[in-house]
Amino acid sequence: MDDSRFTHRTVWLEPDGRTVGILDQTRLPFETVNVALKTSADAEIAIRDMLVRGAPLIGAVGAYGLALALAEDASDTGLAAAYDRLHATRPTAINLRWALDDVRARVAGLAPTARVDAAYARAREIADEDVAINRAIGENAFGLIEARHKAVGGGRPVNILTHCNAGFLATVGWGTALAGIFMAHARGLPVHVWVDETRPRSQGAYLTAWELREAGVPHTVIADNAGGHLMQHGQVDMCIVGTDRVAANGDVCNKVGTYLKALAAFDNGVPFYVALPYPTIDWRVADGVRNIPIEERSPNEVTQVRGRLPDGAVADVTVIEGSAAANPAFDVTPGRLVTGLITERGVCAASGEGLRGLYPERAAAE
Amino acid sequence: MDDSRFTHRTVWLEPDGRTVGILDQTRLPFETVNVALKTSADAEIAIRDMLVRGAPLIGAVGAYGLALALAEDASDTGLAAAYDRLHATRPTAINLRWALDDVRARVAGLAPTARVDAAYARAREIADEDVAINRAIGENAFGLIEARHKAVGGGRPVNILTHCNAGFLATVGWGTALAGIFMAHARGLPVHVWVDETRPRSQGAYLTAWELREAGVPHTVIADNAGGHLMQHGQVDMCIVGTDRVAANGDVCNKVGTYLKALAAFDNGVPFYVALPYPTIDWRVADGVRNIPIEERSPNEVTQVRGRLPDGAVADVTVIEGSAAANPAFDVTPGRLVTGLITERGVCAASGEGLRGLYPERAAAE
Repeated sequence: MDDSRFTHRTVWLEPDGRTVGILDQTRLPFETVNVALKTSADAEIAIRDMLVRGAPLIGAVGAYGLALALAEDASDTGLAAAYDRLHATRPTAINLRWALDDVRARVAGLAPTARVDAAYARAREIADEDVAINRAIGENAFGLIEARHKAVGGGRPVNILTHCNAGFLATVGWGTALAGIFMAHARGLPVHVWVDETRPRSQGAYLTAWELREAGVPHTVIADNAGGHLMQHGQVDMCIVGTDRVAANGDVCNKVGTYLKALAAFDNGVPFYVALPYPTIDWRVADGVRNIPIEERSPNEVTQVRGRLPDGAVADVTVIEGSAAANPAFDVTPGRLVTGLITERGVCAASGEGLRGLYPERAAAE
Repeated sequence: MDDSRFTHRTVWLEPDGRTVGILDQTRLPFETVNVALKTSADAEIAIRDMLVRGAPLIGAVGAYGLALALAEDASDTGLAAAYDRLHATRPTAINLRWALDDVRARVAGLAPTARVDAAYARAREIADEDVAINRAIGENAFGLIEARHKAVGGGRPVNILTHCNAGFLATVGWGTALAGIFMAHARGLPVHVWVDETRPRSQGAYLTAWELREAGVPHTVIADNAGGHLMQHGQVDMCIVGTDRVAANGDVCNKVGTYLKALAAFDNGVPFYVALPYPTIDWRVADGVRNIPIEERSPNEVTQVRGRLPDGAVADVTVIEGSAAANPAFDVTPGRLVTGLITERGVCAASGEGLRGLYPERAAAE
């Protein structure tokens, strides 16, 4: 299968050339519902209520939101007001601000009549750039999967463990950690994915498993507790995870529990890779373990679980009553436990030297 | 507080001296229901349907079941039939067989009229022996907790992480891993317990948290993914877990995920202890990691979760639909990662040498 047929996208332009289509990710995996964003207000709701998630996707929907806003009012006043409204939907999302700044800069100098088409064109470019970066990450990951397939004898699927969700749902297309897996499957290289449930928010069980089902990739969901045992008994050939932030020393901040899997991989000689696009590297943080602050999220994420009742309805049940719960959302895996960082430029060691080698312009800037 | 006031028991004799009381553990934590076993058939149901669980508790309820049966029919025929019926309820439970053999041996030589009282007396002794063993384990654990409290400065609670359930619910009283924690709390030594949820069966969230609430011990439930992060940031002073089987080389088989916590403890210099009574040591298994078979349980335990609906009803919801799930129930932690084994005789290294030192009669037998 040619992987040009891998066309899963999380945001797209409808045939009318104006309406923006998205997948309502809040309803996954229990319902698969596409939503048409016909107005800038629709785009604001989609971002604010997290129908879309993941930094690159939020940026792309923000860019399309500005295009929708200009179709409503292309004046300078309209542009300024739309920028502010969209920015306020997720004020701490760096990619959103970057995308809005970029579109605004492209259209501000144009006559109002030319702004709408220019904004749509730039929004599309922003979306396509994310897909291109992730395709490059995927190609580099594919090389590692292919090598691992040969190393384990080639006669059986490569067993890859992943944690949380770093597939196309978190991006515009392909994803990061899953991109190479999708490519391997599309190209006929046999893979099987161990999907960590990823409590408390269950992004593995809810989102990664959904993506792999959609793409037809063989996979098995496991409790987060199971991976160490599987690695100890040769049932995992490699791990690939995504990341929210990589420090300048190669330490990796990702969904809580990643560190435990990296420890198990290291203890058992299983290669442990982290896939990321360049904006994820935070050059200002010198020491990830010490200096990356970890968000403490609501205990309700631990005490409540969403699922389907026997009658088909989707409901939240309370699993812990009367006890306190804590919910650190991320952890930091020391670079010493990471076999390699997979970026759009290639694979490097999870260290300051490794990162500077792939991004020499940053090394020069320091 | 004197810890003689710690009177939580999972099986007891009612004031009539004949009826046996148990807690229906299948309904925890959502309902706390005691059940009166008035006939041997009641005892059979309690064991078969897992209203009682944990090796020592199953043995004690089996012993009481034989006493109940003799009250119905104290003849030789009655004794033999009751033995067979009770043994068939959990035919692989070693403790059940041991307890039934023991009671039968004590009463078989007596006149039928003397058998009932003798059986009740022996059943009570079997239960009391378990409590005594666990109290001794608890005393040894308490010494370690007290030392740790001093080592961390004494001015704040000792933070102890535990995995799964190894409290009084798994025994007749006190429990193993939790016994020292209950003692510390009862004696005014401040402790705080991080309770691993322990997916997929959630024994931490359901049972350990319930026990700690019952005993008034401060605690916080966390996702299984969180412990590594907490250890990395000095929020765990020690780990204490139970075990299902310890190999002759000190390798520890326990609920799946224990190995991951032991890795994190080792990586961060956090002491990691395993509490156990002597019957848990399997002297026939030389190498735990290689030779202890791991039970693969139903995928339904991963794909379904029990909790309370907003209307108060308890329901099972399906969290994973359309994907395969795997469910290895245990893992083996290499002895090299374990700081010490806490037994009724004292604390030893998790190694063949350590175990033989505490149990020299075994070493002599080899």
